[in-house]
Amino acid sequence: MSKPENTKGLAGISAGETAICTVGKQGVGLTYRGYDIEEMADQAEFEEIAYLLHYNKLPSQSELDAYKKRLQGMRDLPDGVKTALEQLPKDSHPMDVMRTGCSVLGCIEQETDPKQQYDVADRLLASFTSMLMYWYHFSHNGKRIDTVTDDDSVGGHFLHLLHGEKPREDFVKAMSCSLILYAEHEFNASTFTSRVITATLSDFYSAITGAIGALRGPLHGGANEAAMELIQTFKDADDADQGLRGMLERKEKIMGFGHRVYKTSDPRNAIIKEWSRKFAGDDEYKRNIFDISERIAQIMWDEKKLFPNADFFHASAYHFMGIPTKLFTPIFVISRLTGWAAHIFEQRADNRLIRPSADYIGPELQKFVPISERG
Amino acid sequence: MSKPENTKGLAGISAGETAICTVGKQGVGLTYRGYDIEEMADQAEFEEIAYLLHYNKLPSQSELDAYKKRLQGMRDLPDGVKTALEQLPKDSHPMDVMRTGCSVLGCIEQETDPKQQYDVADRLLASFTSMLMYWYHFSHNGKRIDTVTDDDSVGGHFLHLLHGEKPREDFVKAMSCSLILYAEHEFNASTFTSRVITATLSDFYSAITGAIGALRGPLHGGANEAAMELIQTFKDADDADQGLRGMLERKEKIMGFGHRVYKTSDPRNAIIKEWSRKFAGDDEYKRNIFDISERIAQIMWDEKKLFPNADFFHASAYHFMGIPTKLFTPIFVISRLTGWAAHIFEQRADNRLIRPSADYIGPELQKFVPISERG
Repeated sequence: MSKPENTKGLAGISAGETAICTVGKQGVGLTYRGYDIEEMADQAEFEEIAYLLHYNKLPSQSELDAYKKRLQGMRDLPDGVKTALEQLPKDSHPMDVMRTGCSVLGCIEQETDPKQQYDVADRLLASFTSMLMYWYHFSHNGKRIDTVTDDDSVGGHFLHLLHGEKPREDFVKAMSCSLILYAEHEFNASTFTSRVITATLSDFYSAITGAIGALRGPLHGGANEAAMELIQTFKDADDADQGLRGMLERKEKIMGFGHRVYKTSDPRNAIIKEWSRKFAGDDEYKRNIFDISERIAQIMWDEKKLFPNADFFHASAYHFMGIPTKLFTPIFVISRLTGWAAHIFEQRADNRLIRPSADYIGPELQKFVPISERG
Repeated sequence: MSKPENTKGLAGISAGETAICTVGKQGVGLTYRGYDIEEMADQAEFEEIAYLLHYNKLPSQSELDAYKKRLQGMRDLPDGVKTALEQLPKDSHPMDVMRTGCSVLGCIEQETDPKQQYDVADRLLASFTSMLMYWYHFSHNGKRIDTVTDDDSVGGHFLHLLHGEKPREDFVKAMSCSLILYAEHEFNASTFTSRVITATLSDFYSAITGAIGALRGPLHGGANEAAMELIQTFKDADDADQGLRGMLERKEKIMGFGHRVYKTSDPRNAIIKEWSRKFAGDDEYKRNIFDISERIAQIMWDEKKLFPNADFFHASAYHFMGIPTKLFTPIFVISRLTGWAAHIFEQRADNRLIRPSADYIGPELQKFVPISERG
């Protein structure tokens, strides 16, 4: 009855149809609704791509302006969400905070009709940053921040609330690019989670809450944090060279490399790597971090033929923007929400319960022994 | 590229191996770890089966006594969970409350090491009732209840907190039976959700939070509530006869019938139906509800060859125990947690990321048009 090892984890098994995204057709490339990731990252801002994913068309300038204004108007949090966030300790996992904030909002601003789904998606896109930062400043600094800012972008809002000041232009641009890169990735584990939940006809918040829980895992969204931690264990590139070879010999897992679908490279890597290189510039500390990162990537290719995926150079890029490592995966949530939303809409439009079967490898039927007769 | 319709929703596709449960081998039957559901429902109490699912053996009397004591000692809630629950409005969906309570507890009592998984599972099993009832009494009656009681069972604790008094013996027995029937069901949508989340190496609470979100859907755990609502729309059995035939003609969906896996009957139905019949007794109001239920089941079989599944007679059984309809699906959570836990343990013991592929039916690659050039 046993399945062949290579189909375990549903690898290569189709779980349905999608019109949203292609990942690694012929082993390369990434498109959202037919547009190539490199062109989008180069020429669009994140809100355009969020609009594309949610509404299935690229916005005109006036549509985009209206959309950004709309999101800007949705950044405030209900008192109940704030009070709930205040209960979460400083050492909470920030992904658990996101998961909780989403769940509480889903009680207070319940989705009672699927027609509300676009509003709910936009509301979460606008307010996830608010939740994260409200909790962060309250739990770490005892401060109840105002979560409304006049920044006109999701990335700007994030950096502004994090640092308490108007963010640098190039940082805002890099955030926009990063949010585009992470926005959507077909039937990855968190998106698939959101579709399985949606397929029971559950609500939007339940699907997103589950997706956050999946993205939290180190085999999924947690990889950029793990990459940063690894990079910071090394003094310099030569130290990384030696240390990494030791880790490989001891067969330790190195995060941020390879991919279930891509075979030779991750198209998102080159883009975020250039931002990292740019922010490193001539700064000695940053340059060293960048050099360590490059050396690790080189060795992983030489020794294991594994390439850096989207996560690896995100680590240093975020670090150079002054973002604490523990907030890396929550940024992924803010971005990927747009892809999750698109998949929830798509699942709902042509729904069937997602319920696989299993191969049973347990005991044969056995007689139940009442407790009085047990040894 | 399109998949044949009959594999949509992964129907009949194996997503992995399990040693926990068989559902409908040759179309009939349900076993947990090789024991038949009818023997367990008849001879065991729920905590024995929870122990069996969590620890993979039937407990001796002293092990069971210790286990029940242990659960009894885990019913108190941290202040942070209580305060968070107080933020959730009276009209919140009770499943959203469960989802939130679980998520908050996961921040406050974080699982930082998979070795804690048994403790976390038991903690949730003991405290889910506390969360639900704390919220229920606070939001509905403005009362902050003490969630600790001296009842020695999960079902007794539930009924005691709900009604504010020591529960009837036969109700406690029926609850125990009901919790056994709902405890585990192979790769159903919520359990599969918990495995997909777990497979990213995320934490126990994330997996359960997602599973609750899936169980919330009316195509999954919500069916017993929908069944109750249907039953209550009819005056008597003849009225149900007429009304139901009308619904079938209008092709309206009737909840609580048929199953993705079982083909001719659901082995859980006869068991819970007997409890419902017993509680109806000679009481005129209850007998009428039971008669309506039986008539609906008869027509569904005659007209559609669909049999009542576990949910249908659970509706009247719970109703006769004085349980508000909106709390039906949360009971399912309390029970199914034990199955989810077993699957999380099993997934962790031999993990591989669950990441299917998809059939792309979207637009071909198209040139990105910068916003300045869009119409």
